[in-house]
Amino acid sequence: MGDKKSLGLGEFDLIAKYFAPLSVGCEGALSLLDDGAVLDIPEDESLVVSTDCMTEGIHFLEGTAGKHVATRVLGANLSDLAAMGATPRWIFLSLQLPKNTPKNTNEYWEDWLDDFSTALGSGLDKFGVSLAGGDTVTTLGPLAVTITALGSVKKGSALKRSGAEVGDEIWVSGTLGDAQLGLEILQMGDDAPNDKNSNFLITRHHTPEPRVELGKMLAQIGVVNACIDISDGLVADMSHICEASNVTAEIQLSNIPLSSAAKVLLDYDPTRVHKAAFGGGDDYELLFCLSPENSEQLNLLKSKTPFCKIGKIGTISEKSQNKGHAVKIVDPKGENVVVESGGWDHLK
Amino acid sequence: MGDKKSLGLGEFDLIAKYFAPLSVGCEGALSLLDDGAVLDIPEDESLVVSTDCMTEGIHFLEGTAGKHVATRVLGANLSDLAAMGATPRWIFLSLQLPKNTPKNTNEYWEDWLDDFSTALGSGLDKFGVSLAGGDTVTTLGPLAVTITALGSVKKGSALKRSGAEVGDEIWVSGTLGDAQLGLEILQMGDDAPNDKNSNFLITRHHTPEPRVELGKMLAQIGVVNACIDISDGLVADMSHICEASNVTAEIQLSNIPLSSAAKVLLDYDPTRVHKAAFGGGDDYELLFCLSPENSEQLNLLKSKTPFCKIGKIGTISEKSQNKGHAVKIVDPKGENVVVESGGWDHLK
Repeated sequence: MGDKKSLGLGEFDLIAKYFAPLSVGCEGALSLLDDGAVLDIPEDESLVVSTDCMTEGIHFLEGTAGKHVATRVLGANLSDLAAMGATPRWIFLSLQLPKNTPKNTNEYWEDWLDDFSTALGSGLDKFGVSLAGGDTVTTLGPLAVTITALGSVKKGSALKRSGAEVGDEIWVSGTLGDAQLGLEILQMGDDAPNDKNSNFLITRHHTPEPRVELGKMLAQIGVVNACIDISDGLVADMSHICEASNVTAEIQLSNIPLSSAAKVLLDYDPTRVHKAAFGGGDDYELLFCLSPENSEQLNLLKSKTPFCKIGKIGTISEKSQNKGHAVKIVDPKGENVVVESGGWDHLK
Repeated sequence: MGDKKSLGLGEFDLIAKYFAPLSVGCEGALSLLDDGAVLDIPEDESLVVSTDCMTEGIHFLEGTAGKHVATRVLGANLSDLAAMGATPRWIFLSLQLPKNTPKNTNEYWEDWLDDFSTALGSGLDKFGVSLAGGDTVTTLGPLAVTITALGSVKKGSALKRSGAEVGDEIWVSGTLGDAQLGLEILQMGDDAPNDKNSNFLITRHHTPEPRVELGKMLAQIGVVNACIDISDGLVADMSHICEASNVTAEIQLSNIPLSSAAKVLLDYDPTRVHKAAFGGGDDYELLFCLSPENSEQLNLLKSKTPFCKIGKIGTISEKSQNKGHAVKIVDPKGENVVVESGGWDHLK
């Protein structure tokens, strides 16, 4: 009852007001009024499904605006589908709204939900995705959002982490470390700088751009041996490919792509920038491997999304020469860069 | 870092230990090691998807054993699929484990996860369902579990809430009110009775039996006009059918099926039992409507799952004669029973 009063709306009214509009155009969502959704994918395609959960105070800072929570959790999910080469189609949203907090006023939550649902709707529109169902509940704890995203890909063409082969080139899209540097700026609170570069980095943290089009193209060209999205950090996610493929990776430090905003920081604090580029999660760029003889097929895609070659795949035996690490980063002098951070483990 | 120490395991180890075994046999789950799952359903079937979230202190009592959390959230999800006539196939699990609580010791969480994952595995086995993915995170709040369940149904044959027609008979499976009565016994704490009937009711609360087989059969016979599972309570869920179908419902009080354990309570506290049967959620029985001329087709199914006729569908105009309520319950004297509880609204 407290909830009903404080939220101003019951569950069904809340769904009707904020979320049913995001299901318009998706007949199988049944206006979010039934027990589930009834959906069809093309007969020659497989379903691809991914789930991501973010909780306040762990995955996003306390008091983060609804629009930023929406773009981050949607971005993380669609990025997982992109890493498999899938076309995103539907999401299912589980929203846990705090029951007993000082912020728990009508106005606060109505504004928050308006901000959240508007940004979620824009993100869905951008990628042609519909909200097809979910569950809205209260929690005695902080805000939490889980999205399960469904997409589809031509049968047999889904990109996976396994499959990288010795001699493969390693490629990555976009620039790395930005989201982590943006988070660090946000954590400065009132002392945070407010210049163009800082704002660019903050935006990279708040509004990830899942590489949906690139992922689809990589699946279509059919020569990518392994692919992953960088959600845990370059080293951690490269390690995931290495482990799944039973190989090692050597990455050239000088080839790791940095944004011009990160390059400005690089001049006076290289350690911070390198740590962010190696270990910072949430850039949601695609990291992929293919044979050098197929790399010219990438030229067709390059105009749409920037990407570059950063290293090569080696044999598993090289692991023992690198203190047991599957991933080695080498500086321009040919020396190993010590990688302290293994990236993001969601339970750390 | 606190998490890693207190849980004893990082995210990837935890998944490998407790959850990867529940994906064995499901090739498309990719051993829970990739960005998502790649799944196929038969070409002549539609996908059916449902999401349910439960949080500690709201949807289950604080300190509820892992096995009971597992059976309740799985039961709720599979019941949603059953209500649409779908065969359940896969689930995706989002698990939020508390970071800072007195219970947050290695032993507590390892035992809890063992209990939870074992019961979840048994439930999945029982219905031929695989864990195909998910996300395991920490939260600064209480435990929370979201499951998104995927199933499939022959194209065009999914059962829905809309479609009930004037003159239809209303049928319900099993018995009603048991889960609510079981919860009330649990809430007595140390004063709770410990007899056979009480334990039966507690089990009905902790271990719902989703009517998966009945739902599939109802979809197959092709004559059911509307169906829903009773998760919010008889009156609330009957109202959902009425609203979606633009009809009213008249239910005979004497026909509402009660378990023998509930009947014992009925003798000395009829109000409590009726309130539970009308408004108590979580029985997860199926409530369905079909034309009297088709009801003999139900005879084929009756040996597998008990169900009975409880009322009939009326015209929308009868709503105005019932103080605006779509659902009327009538006692043996033909008088309206006052229905106080409208059932469970997840934000109340």
